[in-house]
Formats: sequence, structure tokens, C-alpha cells
Amino acid sequence: MLPASFVRQGKKIVAIGRNYADHVKELRNTIPKEPFFFLKPTTSYVESGGKVEIPRGIVAHHEVELGVVIGKGGRDILQQNADLHVAGYALAVDMTARNLQEEVKKKGLPWSAVKGFDTFTPIGPFVVRSSIIDPHNLNLSLKINGAIKQNGNTADMLFRIPRLIEHVSSIMTLEEGDLILTGTPSGIGPVVSGDEVDCALADSTGNILTTLAFTA
Amino acid sequence: MLPASFVRQGKKIVAIGRNYADHVKELRNTIPKEPFFFLKPTTSYVESGGKVEIPRGIVAHHEVELGVVIGKGGRDILQQNADLHVAGYALAVDMTARNLQEEVKKKGLPWSAVKGFDTFTPIGPFVVRSSIIDPHNLNLSLKINGAIKQNGNTADMLFRIPRLIEHVSSIMTLEEGDLILTGTPSGIGPVVSGDEVDCALADSTGNILTTLAFTA
Ligand SMILES: [Mg+2]
Ligand SMILES: [Mg+2]
Ligand SMILES: [Mg+2]
Repeated sequence: MLPASFVRQGKKIVAIGRNYADHVKELRNTIPKEPFFFLKPTTSYVESGGKVEIPRGIVAHHEVELGVVIGKGGRDILQQNADLHVAGYALAVDMTARNLQEEVKKKGLPWSAVKGFDTFTPIGPFVVRSSIIDPHNLNLSLKINGAIKQNGNTADMLFRIPRLIEHVSSIMTLEEGDLILTGTPSGIGPVVSGDEVDCALADSTGNILTTLAFTA
Repeated sequence: MLPASFVRQGKKIVAIGRNYADHVKELRNTIPKEPFFFLKPTTSYVESGGKVEIPRGIVAHHEVELGVVIGKGGRDILQQNADLHVAGYALAVDMTARNLQEEVKKKGLPWSAVKGFDTFTPIGPFVVRSSIIDPHNLNLSLKINGAIKQNGNTADMLFRIPRLIEHVSSIMTLEEGDLILTGTPSGIGPVVSGDEVDCALADSTGNILTTLAFTA
């Protein structure tokens, strides 16, 4: 498969939780001692320009995130070899049914439904790895109807990409076309029907590398 | 794709929790008012005859389950149409890192790692739908080193297959090759290194429809 076709051909989305300290604080969670993750189904992808469907009764929050597209699969990948397994990146939003998430967290139930509704993973185009010099110095922003809501930098990840790849692949084999979502900075909040959402990924010079737009 | 190749080509495993009252009791959980589920990665499959790897420090429990293989995909599938989407069945074991599960339940964290280790979904061969007259009257059994540990009947499911398909597809699109694990009856317990595990699915006359064997 071509890495650019990960949206159609990839099998899993592994999403890291609580990977930016300021986001951990805003949800009154505790800083994790090691990375943790949940799975999203690939049926939750919606490509840039598409529409996020918010089911009735759901409070849907945006979480803008850097996605890492796996090129070469593997298991028990060491941090120092992780780069060899990265084909590229994509800008993504990890939509979350926040009201349901609060319920399942209290009850100790799984997060899969809360995170897995159809269209709950808006995804931008594939960005080849060689075009990004330093994935840990990128600005991630999200606007709703032109107003800035999230504006963070991947330098603030608690666990960096090689550590995430090592951790995930120590539990489950990573395959070509899998996507790792690396967590969201602070500023999360609701998206409601009619909203226009615009996300951008920029390098340290302010140069925009890729964008993602959707309506709700 | 051929339905028989769901293990290699399917994209997701949707596993139902607490779908047999006697199993709900043995884990001191409450009977759910509606079905709930979690995702397992397809990288957790290991075919009959294979070996389940139990990571160090993990207490791995067996949960024998009837798997439903999706033929025709769909979303918002109604119960009365659910049969049209079933290609067949497979006998499966939903291996669970029980000690980690107790921890994540207390902390309100996702179940994905707990359920998603490589080889944590032993899976039997595809059984075509037409060969099973009544999927809600099947005996599910699991033996360890010849001693019977689980012995239940799919008649005791709290939510039957059409209801499960309706529920899951109201949240996430089902695709050809997806597997739904329909929950486990009571009798769950540890599998340890060196164990030989044998599972069988039988009809109401005692006729064995399919088997699944693995070592640990
Ligand atoms: Mg999956
Ligand atoms: Mg997230
Ligand atoms: Mg189970």
C-alpha cells in the first residue's frame, strides 16, 4: 500500500491520552507515569472538507492532534529505531463525546464508543516524513468560526513520538497504514452543528505545512 | 474479500462486555441496560493451533465467545435486517489481562491495552452462516489441560446478535470482515504458561460445529 492511502487501507488508530500537561490540567486528570492509549476504528475517519455528524444528546469536543502514519510495521520497536517505522504525518482531530466519556470514566467502562462514532476522526492529507524537519517543534492550531480555540506546540508532549511507538508496539504490533494520534494540547471544547472548524500545522518559522477543515 | 479471510483482511474486532448474567455476577458487575463494547486490534488474532503469549506480570484470563463475522457492511442496521449482514461465525477467546483491567477500571482508563496484546484473540476457522441453524442455541465450552472451565449456552445472552449488530452499527459502521465477539459465559479464569486450551462449539444435539485449540 502507499502510505498516502492510510485512511482507506490502514487498520487501526491508536490514540494517546493525556500527552500535554496543560490539557491534563484542564480536565483535572493526573499526569500519567507512562503513555496510555485507546483504539479508534478507521470507520471514524472523515477527510478534510467533510462533515462531522454529532449524534443527538452528544456533547462533542474537538482535540487537535498530530497523527503519525506508520510505514514499516513492527513489534517491540525500540525508541532509537522508531524513526524507521514512520512514513509521515497527518493533522487530525480526535472528536470525543465528552458527556459520555465522563459517564464511562466513572463506571470504569471502555472508551471505544465515546471516541468511535462515525466521522469522529477528521483527518488531513498525508504529509511525507522528509518534509518535516522536527516533529517535536510544530504548532498545532484549531479555530471555530474563525476564533482560535487551541494553539499548542508538539514540543510540549509529555512522551515524544519514539517513546509512543516503543510503548504501543510493546503491546500490539504496528502495521503499515496504522495511525498514532499523539494527544492534544489545551483548549478543547464543544463543536456544535453549523460550526466551521479549521486546523493548521506550522513549523517554527510559521510556515504552514498542512491544514484540515470540516463542518459540523 | 472472502469471508473466510476475515482474520487477515478484517479491520476491527468489536467485543461486547457483560452479555451473560452468570458472568456479570462472577465479576461482581451490574447487568447493563444496553449493550456496551470495546475494540480489539486485529493484530491480536492468533489462529487455532497457535500460542498465546502471556507478558510478564500479566494475569491472563480466558473468555470463550461466539464470534460473528460481518459479510455485508452497513450502518444503522435494524435488528430485523441484521441477519443479512452476517456471513458466518467463528469460535474465539477474548483473552484479558485481568490484573491490569482491575486497575484501569478503578482509574476510569480505556481497556484497549488490557484486551489488545498480540495473541490475545485466539480464533477458530470461519463457519458459514448456513451451517448453523440457530446461533442462539449453541453450547460454548473451554477446557484447560482436559479439565472443563467454561460451559455455557448462547441462549443465555442478555442481548442477542441482531440487537448487538443494531447497537454497534448505530455508533460505528460495520465493514465486511469485522468480527463481533458476543460475550462470555461464567467460568473465566487464568491461563498460564504451558497450558493447553481446547474450546468447542456444539449444537443442541451435541454435534460439534467447530473447535479452537491453543497453547500458552
Ligand atoms: Mg481497530
Ligand atoms: Mg485525544
Ligand atoms: Mg469478553
